[in-house]
Amino acid sequence: MLKLSERGSSMPASPIRKLVPYAEAAKKKGLEVFHLNIGQPDIKTPEVGLKALKNLNIKTIEYSHSAGLQEYRKGLAKYYKSININVSYEDILITTGGSEAIIFAFLATMNPDDEVIIPEPFYTNYNGFANQAGVKIIPVTSYIENDFALPPIEDFEKLITAKTKAILVCNPNNPTGYLYSKEEIIKLKELITKHNLYLFSDEVYREFCYDGQTHYSAMELEGVDDNIVLFDSVSKRYSECGVRIGALVTRNKDIINTALKYAQARLSPPFLGQVVGQESLKAGKEYFDEVYSEYIERRNYVINALNKIKDIYAPMPKGAFYSILRLPIEDAEHFCIWLLEEFSYKNATVMLAPAGGFYSTKGAGKNEVRIAYVLEKEKLKKSVKIIEEALKVYKH
Amino acid sequence: MLKLSERGSSMPASPIRKLVPYAEAAKKKGLEVFHLNIGQPDIKTPEVGLKALKNLNIKTIEYSHSAGLQEYRKGLAKYYKSININVSYEDILITTGGSEAIIFAFLATMNPDDEVIIPEPFYTNYNGFANQAGVKIIPVTSYIENDFALPPIEDFEKLITAKTKAILVCNPNNPTGYLYSKEEIIKLKELITKHNLYLFSDEVYREFCYDGQTHYSAMELEGVDDNIVLFDSVSKRYSECGVRIGALVTRNKDIINTALKYAQARLSPPFLGQVVGQESLKAGKEYFDEVYSEYIERRNYVINALNKIKDIYAPMPKGAFYSILRLPIEDAEHFCIWLLEEFSYKNATVMLAPAGGFYSTKGAGKNEVRIAYVLEKEKLKKSVKIIEEALKVYKH
Repeated sequence: MLKLSERGSSMPASPIRKLVPYAEAAKKKGLEVFHLNIGQPDIKTPEVGLKALKNLNIKTIEYSHSAGLQEYRKGLAKYYKSININVSYEDILITTGGSEAIIFAFLATMNPDDEVIIPEPFYTNYNGFANQAGVKIIPVTSYIENDFALPPIEDFEKLITAKTKAILVCNPNNPTGYLYSKEEIIKLKELITKHNLYLFSDEVYREFCYDGQTHYSAMELEGVDDNIVLFDSVSKRYSECGVRIGALVTRNKDIINTALKYAQARLSPPFLGQVVGQESLKAGKEYFDEVYSEYIERRNYVINALNKIKDIYAPMPKGAFYSILRLPIEDAEHFCIWLLEEFSYKNATVMLAPAGGFYSTKGAGKNEVRIAYVLEKEKLKKSVKIIEEALKVYKH
Repeated sequence: MLKLSERGSSMPASPIRKLVPYAEAAKKKGLEVFHLNIGQPDIKTPEVGLKALKNLNIKTIEYSHSAGLQEYRKGLAKYYKSININVSYEDILITTGGSEAIIFAFLATMNPDDEVIIPEPFYTNYNGFANQAGVKIIPVTSYIENDFALPPIEDFEKLITAKTKAILVCNPNNPTGYLYSKEEIIKLKELITKHNLYLFSDEVYREFCYDGQTHYSAMELEGVDDNIVLFDSVSKRYSECGVRIGALVTRNKDIINTALKYAQARLSPPFLGQVVGQESLKAGKEYFDEVYSEYIERRNYVINALNKIKDIYAPMPKGAFYSILRLPIEDAEHFCIWLLEEFSYKNATVMLAPAGGFYSTKGAGKNEVRIAYVLEKEKLKKSVKIIEEALKVYKH
């Protein structure tokens, strides 16, 4: 008998996947389904980026350099400098999405069975990358009661073993919307210095910080150049998820050189996406202002409206475009399926992501869901109303 | 002290990499360097593919489905049917280059330390993918004396252990240009059936078969649906290496479903590349006829001319656009560096790939180099002349 590998068999499916057939069935019944479960923004890609494709004057779509187009890397270095991250283009490796940057960093710094500590709830696809690299995620729990702030450093320290190689944070955070403060990042610096660890910082939502808060990047920390690896992506920044362009950024030459070897094996990041990413760097302040005001309006509306519903608690996100909601229910997965399968209001329903999938600790987040507020306000309004009406009749 | 991982430290660099500084120095000295070392074709991408980018009418570059655009997968299924590979679009997962298809197949079917047997010399990047997946490549040597035909099945059988999970062949072969016959593929079928193994077939050069030979795909084998995984890519077929679009094709539902989970973790293959790939399917017979006649002319010229040089032997490739040459020298790497560092003829020199890097067996292929005949004929002519003159004065 032919068998799958053990890792293949144990590779986790997306926690949303179980819900997809229910959503499809709901649509087949004629219901409108509002997708609060996904992070695909409806925001426009910068026009300069799209125009670059129309203006492309080439006869052959060739490989780019394995580390990415030099001009693009130089443009990115300039962008980073503008936000107080001083790196040269040689500290930047263009990757196929932010996901490849994460995998390359895991491969370069961690042996199979080594451990990376990540505050939970966390972006579920980290589980997939860990499976792929054969490393273990050790969760340190953050709590909705204090809006998912960084867990106390002692909680991290209790989890450190000889196998621990790194801490990974996502800042601003998907799925919680929490923005780590400068003070929290400095605490992490002390932790990694004391225990000789890498700090992986996933900052793909950097541009989405609200209420006058500023983003403090792990790359701004001083004296720990060799410890820090930044994961970045243009997907959310310029609403161009489909280009699959990210970056691994580090001043640690050993890591860059090793990541480059993995990059050479796959030859080249996508050329067309790099062209769009490079030109998108020219998107001006107006672009971000427009995006910002769109998101802040959506956030303010949806979070305030949800908190007005009896027994719902939703922390006000300081960044990204997600929030975790605590609902007056026992089993969020059951509720989410029920919403799709049995409930509708004015011929519509909502798809939510049960938050359990964002926790490693079994049973954690069972009465929580994640929402992405990437839909236009009118749809958000309808979605909130649906949730409100649903909770009135849901019996669990 | 922060350390790299063991796999990171042992990740092989591209065998060409050592030569790159010498090539750069040669160019700085003002020499023209003819790159026979790389597989970046100068052939044009189909115009329909390029036009698709200009005609793209979207506001947001969104993720595609993790398995790829359904319309593209359906188009591919039709293409496969036209070449006698009967698959449905559900047997096809669009990957980021052929390389991702290989990694997904390794992950899905092999545990760390499991073994895959590959005829050597083989495409060096397989080493990188094996490192990434933590699996071992066991080489079975093929020989230039019989033009790198499939090694005897007994040679494979001697290498099979409890850890052996798969055989991997590249057909037509990079780096040898060998095209496996239907009889050879059927022998492999008997082998995998007898020993319960997977057969991974890398067929990215399928369209490049010469002298009236036809390609027999492993996917045409009957009764072994669950054993076969096909790796494909549009890079060479349509000369669009930079789009990074490949495919994993198998009728084994367990593998497709598992590969899809890895695909979901990275969200989506490049959208723009898929658009180009999809439209390129419309490239007509004229396109391939033109490409074919270009390559066959180059091949015939360069292989015949090289074989006329004293003590050079180059098998006449039946497919792809590579050949391995046996040279009257002792150490090909030394010769290749010497060509760049110390030799020139009419203010030009050539960059060749030492073949040692394509073998796993230590010392094998030491007097061999790989060439890619992807340059236009005039450059090939000059290159041959340079090699001829170089061998007259080279002293090792």
